[in-house]
Amino acid sequence: MELGVIGLGRMGRIVVDRVLDAGHDVVVFDIDDAAVADAADAGARAADSIPDLADSLGEDKRIWLMVPAGDPVDAALDELDGLVDGDDVVVDGGNSHFEDSVRRAKATDAAYLDCGTSGGPAGAELGFSLMVGGPQWAYDELTPVFDAVATGPAGHDRMGPAGSGHYVKMVHNGVEYALMQAYGEGFELLANGRYDLDLEAVSRTWNNGAVIRSWLLELCEEAFREEGNDLGDVADRVEGGSTGTWTVQEALEQEVPVPLIYQALAERFGSRADDGRFSRRLASRLRYGFGRHEVPRRSE
Amino acid sequence: MELGVIGLGRMGRIVVDRVLDAGHDVVVFDIDDAAVADAADAGARAADSIPDLADSLGEDKRIWLMVPAGDPVDAALDELDGLVDGDDVVVDGGNSHFEDSVRRAKATDAAYLDCGTSGGPAGAELGFSLMVGGPQWAYDELTPVFDAVATGPAGHDRMGPAGSGHYVKMVHNGVEYALMQAYGEGFELLANGRYDLDLEAVSRTWNNGAVIRSWLLELCEEAFREEGNDLGDVADRVEGGSTGTWTVQEALEQEVPVPLIYQALAERFGSRADDGRFSRRLASRLRYGFGRHEVPRRSE
Amino acid sequence: MELGVIGLGRMGRIVVDRVLDAGHDVVVFDIDDAAVADAADAGARAADSIPDLADSLGEDKRIWLMVPAGDPVDAALDELDGLVDGDDVVVDGGNSHFEDSVRRAKATDAAYLDCGTSGGPAGAELGFSLMVGGPQWAYDELTPVFDAVATGPAGHDRMGPAGSGHYVKMVHNGVEYALMQAYGEGFELLANGRYDLDLEAVSRTWNNGAVIRSWLLELCEEAFREEGNDLGDVADRVEGGSTGTWTVQEALEQEVPVPLIYQALAERFGSRADDGRFSRRLASRLRYGFGRHEVPRRSE
Amino acid sequence: MELGVIGLGRMGRIVVDRVLDAGHDVVVFDIDDAAVADAADAGARAADSIPDLADSLGEDKRIWLMVPAGDPVDAALDELDGLVDGDDVVVDGGNSHFEDSVRRAKATDAAYLDCGTSGGPAGAELGFSLMVGGPQWAYDELTPVFDAVATGPAGHDRMGPAGSGHYVKMVHNGVEYALMQAYGEGFELLANGRYDLDLEAVSRTWNNGAVIRSWLLELCEEAFREEGNDLGDVADRVEGGSTGTWTVQEALEQEVPVPLIYQALAERFGSRADDGRFSRRLASRLRYGFGRHEVPRRSE
Repeated sequence: MELGVIGLGRMGRIVVDRVLDAGHDVVVFDIDDAAVADAADAGARAADSIPDLADSLGEDKRIWLMVPAGDPVDAALDELDGLVDGDDVVVDGGNSHFEDSVRRAKATDAAYLDCGTSGGPAGAELGFSLMVGGPQWAYDELTPVFDAVATGPAGHDRMGPAGSGHYVKMVHNGVEYALMQAYGEGFELLANGRYDLDLEAVSRTWNNGAVIRSWLLELCEEAFREEGNDLGDVADRVEGGSTGTWTVQEALEQEVPVPLIYQALAERFGSRADDGRFSRRLASRLRYGFGRHEVPRRSE
Repeated sequence: MELGVIGLGRMGRIVVDRVLDAGHDVVVFDIDDAAVADAADAGARAADSIPDLADSLGEDKRIWLMVPAGDPVDAALDELDGLVDGDDVVVDGGNSHFEDSVRRAKATDAAYLDCGTSGGPAGAELGFSLMVGGPQWAYDELTPVFDAVATGPAGHDRMGPAGSGHYVKMVHNGVEYALMQAYGEGFELLANGRYDLDLEAVSRTWNNGAVIRSWLLELCEEAFREEGNDLGDVADRVEGGSTGTWTVQEALEQEVPVPLIYQALAERFGSRADDGRFSRRLASRLRYGFGRHEVPRRSE
Repeated sequence: MELGVIGLGRMGRIVVDRVLDAGHDVVVFDIDDAAVADAADAGARAADSIPDLADSLGEDKRIWLMVPAGDPVDAALDELDGLVDGDDVVVDGGNSHFEDSVRRAKATDAAYLDCGTSGGPAGAELGFSLMVGGPQWAYDELTPVFDAVATGPAGHDRMGPAGSGHYVKMVHNGVEYALMQAYGEGFELLANGRYDLDLEAVSRTWNNGAVIRSWLLELCEEAFREEGNDLGDVADRVEGGSTGTWTVQEALEQEVPVPLIYQALAERFGSRADDGRFSRRLASRLRYGFGRHEVPRRSE
Repeated sequence: MELGVIGLGRMGRIVVDRVLDAGHDVVVFDIDDAAVADAADAGARAADSIPDLADSLGEDKRIWLMVPAGDPVDAALDELDGLVDGDDVVVDGGNSHFEDSVRRAKATDAAYLDCGTSGGPAGAELGFSLMVGGPQWAYDELTPVFDAVATGPAGHDRMGPAGSGHYVKMVHNGVEYALMQAYGEGFELLANGRYDLDLEAVSRTWNNGAVIRSWLLELCEEAFREEGNDLGDVADRVEGGSTGTWTVQEALEQEVPVPLIYQALAERFGSRADDGRFSRRLASRLRYGFGRHEVPRRSE
């Protein structure tokens, strides 16, 4: 089959390569000409613009958007407006908020599939996990493409109607934050505990048969191998947080307690409090208030 | 009545003054001669040593220990060994672990009262809150002294048998950690929120009629007045933690969830992690592992 | 001076009484005729409708809304539309979301004061704590009324521009949740700990001089006195949560960690999970998965 | 080589079978004669008693204890006392506290290896992850046995001196609690969220390529397949907790914050509070105290 891919960043390019490898035709567009040329070298057909891409696809167009969440998705859909109809399918493979996907599914003339994509750069070889929301017929139509982009047929599934793919991906990411912090707590204790341990060896031993073995734990093993047992100069500053924030917001809306996910997110915020945590500074001062305990001061 | 006081630190001295003010006789001893001389100037009788103090009290000796928790309490009791009997009463007014108090109550020839003392230096004028454990008769005997040291009759009570006074004080302190952190979170949000607020004015307004008014909130008001709206050079470093740790340990033993108390304690630990939190450094590195997100590095 | 009060529920009526007691004139309206008649008996002037109330106030109208947050506030403002102008002042004393207050301040022809009100029914005698946002001149104009409704001059203050009053009240409530849960944890440990304790006596002793003394702790003391040491038939179900949810949402927005406030809110959600917590049910089943531990089942 | 195995419970028996399969000789003892007979049928040599087992091993005895942690380990070591010497090696493959292992390593005449064992019943086919503490020479001697019991050479490693094996296993279990609860939170949100989802399909999709794929997530998938999408009659009651408690106790000792591990443990405690959570009952009553909110009561 034939697929148009808009957006040739790291993830978009992996999509292109995997779909080409599976023997399908791919038309590509990106605002970066070099990225387009590069994909053309790899076997894709180059388009000059989004209309050109739409035009070069026949009837029953299948288009995969792999652009940053937010305005770029809306901008691409605006350009497709009038060029696609109800027999066409547009896939948003980025990290959009599920409510945006619900809105876009309504506003787009084509059938719309929101597709949560997990697996990171490693997916280039292994394939991704794809959580898809939208009409069943559109999901069925795209199955050959999903088979190629995912780890295989087991690596993708239709979660439900519009928005459900990005909804499940949002929760996936919330869980991801908590898992990372949970492993981190374990290693923090081992790094500060009673024994002088080789944390790469600990990770490796755990990854071979232990209950907590996982891909994230393999990444811990890799991190200790590459950064050293004390993580070298990796700073105590965790960036990101939007999908975790969305998860907690939705959990508030649904009145579902998610204390571990919340705490993992709060640790990120805390790591970025460059002037120190006000709450703790106040607590320290209160200890003087009621107990005349000496207050540690910032050195000048 | 007549009271011997061993230990003339800040808190011991307040005990001496309040008991003298109530018209009782006080005999004092401390290893610091100057502290003894000072108390003598205030109207107490000086003793040269613990045996001398015991000796100078008549029959039915009543002795208040106000020495640091731990070895100093045992050392004082060792010196009293053989000098007191079952008609005498020893009060431990310090921050001892309740299990030590249970042990000491068994090992001491005198009746033993463990007395949790709360109120800090402000208690000099207002009197303390006293949580007392031990035999009822001994508590009754000491009532005039407790009336004087506490805010009055409502400021002291017998909690139960040996250890219960320090047990209730331990839990008091665990709650105290959580209250401080709770106020801290509120002010941290106000300090980083949408409005440019005068936090002393906020505290004062709250302290006059709001549901969350409290003595700790009065101390917050004082802190903002004395340190400034941004707490000036108060460092993000909260010292202490032993009674909070005891509280969490006991809650683990009793299988009672205390997530707020735990988190408040964990914030103290976190504030003292001078090399950064290992857990967060690992989480940051893992974001590279699965997403090739750039890793913030410590500047050299 | 003369004040119109719209809304004669429990809180509105307290406002009326306190303003009358301070010697001011009050015109009242409520959709409940009986409430209006009752307030008229107490010395207020009755109005038949909101337009009637506006009409019966002279120039420079001062109107206090004490209606439930949300649509009722907008409905009252709609009725006032065209009847008030820029020399008039409308106060919203309810629990509105600060963003609604910002919006209303813009949309209303009168000067608009958002007034967070804390203190509950006890405020009838003691007066409230009032956190006010909006124009300085309007706050100044209303000072005699605020003096009457608050605990006195120290019980009210202008926090800042539009919305800041309800913003500070929102954070107040978030802190309130955490304080309640913190005391609750302490008493839960005492109730399940090593000693058979009289929790009313513990509360009373703490309230007299201890560091954690507070109005909420006085309410704990009252609760144990009225419900018994085991809280009798009080159910494990905590209702409410909107202002706490707003606080956490705002903290997410500002990236400020509020783990204690979050956890206190999550406990409320958890107490209302009538079919049990799914997360724990899954954890229990996983223990079978990796360890063949027996899974507790719901009895039929 | 030749190995004595004491304890033929589920885990001990797996050890026997895997060591036999690897071509080694095994002598077995258990207080349950049937278990001994059964292992003998499988090719092990039966011993009548611990002394008989020790006797039937030649010089340089290698003995694996797989008995419940606590007194049974000490009882077995008592029986071995005098029958083993410094050339012999005893392995404790159970879930002992690391401090007990340190003590036993000192008290035992044989070399002592504490061996944390993870993998559960699934280890019968896959092999276990083995975290070993104790003398290097003894670890080296036992390598053929560890190769057989573990998933292979990568599935076991020497962590460090006495106690380190059980120390690392303790932390492993603490992390395990947090991971389980983290997945549980995600699925709780999905089960109560906006879409009607097939949680087995979600798990399967995640397990094929997603960042959070893991063995525990495979067990989630299995749980939904076997119990149904709503987990059927699985109760909200999570048993166990000793190794998690040890982890938190050690983290308190080392002053390392472990909020996610703590919260996961606290959820277990909370799930077992059969009379409801006192803290929340008090919070509910306090809402009446300050706001006259109706208090939900237990139905009679």
